[in-house]
Amino acid sequence: MSLLVVGTVAFDAIETPFGKTDKIIGGAATYISLAASYFNKEITLVSVVGDDFPSSSIDMLQKHGISTEGLQVKAGEKSFFWSGRYHADMNTRDTLATELNVLANFDPVVPDSIKEPDFLMLGNLMPSIQQKVMAQLKKRPKLVVLDTMNFWMDTAMDDLHKTLGMVDVLTINDAEARQLSGEYSLVKAAQKILAMGPKVLIIKKGEHGALLFNKEQVFFAPALPLEDVFDPTGAGDSFAGGFIGYLAETKDISFDNMKRAIIFGSAMASFCVEKFGVERLVGLTQEQVDERVQEFVDLVQFDISLV
Amino acid sequence: MSLLVVGTVAFDAIETPFGKTDKIIGGAATYISLAASYFNKEITLVSVVGDDFPSSSIDMLQKHGISTEGLQVKAGEKSFFWSGRYHADMNTRDTLATELNVLANFDPVVPDSIKEPDFLMLGNLMPSIQQKVMAQLKKRPKLVVLDTMNFWMDTAMDDLHKTLGMVDVLTINDAEARQLSGEYSLVKAAQKILAMGPKVLIIKKGEHGALLFNKEQVFFAPALPLEDVFDPTGAGDSFAGGFIGYLAETKDISFDNMKRAIIFGSAMASFCVEKFGVERLVGLTQEQVDERVQEFVDLVQFDISLV
Repeated sequence: MSLLVVGTVAFDAIETPFGKTDKIIGGAATYISLAASYFNKEITLVSVVGDDFPSSSIDMLQKHGISTEGLQVKAGEKSFFWSGRYHADMNTRDTLATELNVLANFDPVVPDSIKEPDFLMLGNLMPSIQQKVMAQLKKRPKLVVLDTMNFWMDTAMDDLHKTLGMVDVLTINDAEARQLSGEYSLVKAAQKILAMGPKVLIIKKGEHGALLFNKEQVFFAPALPLEDVFDPTGAGDSFAGGFIGYLAETKDISFDNMKRAIIFGSAMASFCVEKFGVERLVGLTQEQVDERVQEFVDLVQFDISLV
Repeated sequence: MSLLVVGTVAFDAIETPFGKTDKIIGGAATYISLAASYFNKEITLVSVVGDDFPSSSIDMLQKHGISTEGLQVKAGEKSFFWSGRYHADMNTRDTLATELNVLANFDPVVPDSIKEPDFLMLGNLMPSIQQKVMAQLKKRPKLVVLDTMNFWMDTAMDDLHKTLGMVDVLTINDAEARQLSGEYSLVKAAQKILAMGPKVLIIKKGEHGALLFNKEQVFFAPALPLEDVFDPTGAGDSFAGGFIGYLAETKDISFDNMKRAIIFGSAMASFCVEKFGVERLVGLTQEQVDERVQEFVDLVQFDISLV
């Protein structure tokens, strides 16, 4: 089924304890689309870049079967740029630079060909821009997944609450769940957030895995214990991409299928962090993805039969 | 099969954001024995208390089928006492008081009736005292599980290494695994620690679950997402008790059975933190334990069949 992905396409410059990069391509929509492309082949990306963005990278997205029809390229302008440095624990980072550039006046335009997407992934963006995308659709998608971050909780909470009322699934990290709900306990936080609109909440805990909640059930997916996390940038977006890509392809939005989708999302995140930027997400084989998913199965499956 | 449990039996005074206690009974061997008693009925406890320790608490242990034949009661002396205050996150705490009392000169004596235990659980104690217990046994148990802590890494590393060379399974938390190995990555830490002696390593991550490693395999068990963690004291010991109690009862020390044992251990830890001290571990029914284990099954089981 068709999947519309909205979010940033950008440049990042990253420093980790393992090394540093010059400007490399990044952005939420880039990671989401690439991760989703291993499951779904009807992806359209809506975003904006400047004319400094390399055409070879646009070609790369297209080679993954991602339509860039909705990717605006602004002549004479520069692409969004973020630079950051990760601490030794790889869980915290300092932002060294944020240059909005083309993103400052981003007015998303959904192409006519995808005005009725089956699935919609709203990557992290200003909540009012996320709403503008939904306003252009001719019918409500089967499933809308929203990613957001603490920055919008600090600066645009009213708009964020309005967006929350329009979506089916929300993905945020544990600190953001605590901020949004005012509850320290993630179980209590989940119930408060589910009362804000989303029917399903995914709380991402980085190296500690992810929790999937609806009002009655909870499911836990681990992160894969890795020898080294090389670069965490994009892990959450890769997770979301694998999640919605799998759902779009299997056309099943039941809680049980979301459990499976979270495992596929976790597998894509585990690839993402093994190299800088999107490097590891480009050109994976189906066998590599299946092997990785099998590692998750082996990691958590046990056999207990209670009488 | 018979299970010998060695460790402290003590008084604790605990402050959490939810309240505070006067002196209540605690100690590693108390939690371990109680948790194990839901699976195994051949438990003997070796420890020491002063004559200030209430006989009603000794009765309570006996009612759980735990032999206190090896519990020395020192006339005119006081029991080990620890007091601590947990921070709001429940993961960090300040020690307010530590009074060794009878523990300062603890010379463990294994009763003649249990000189050939099938299973041995060495709860957290000075490593040289743990060795004294092993030296009194007439044959090597089928399985020896060791718990220890950062304090012994700081003050008695040589003795600890000697003890590590004598045991089959080590349980420590993530910070301790990093300290013992000098590796930040838990995967790398595990391989270094497994080269020190133990064939199996369990890394406890509190609310983030636990990892089980041998040289070839890894298994992850989640913690149950709880509305509130009321008092974390004894959670790690309850986990160890459920783990070894289940193994001793099922007589199967394969990696697959250790996976099951870790789930039972996690279930006992999830009970432990729901009330102050050992309160929640006293008088559980088999149905309550089974229901809790089923919650773990529901939490992590999913169905993915790869071609």
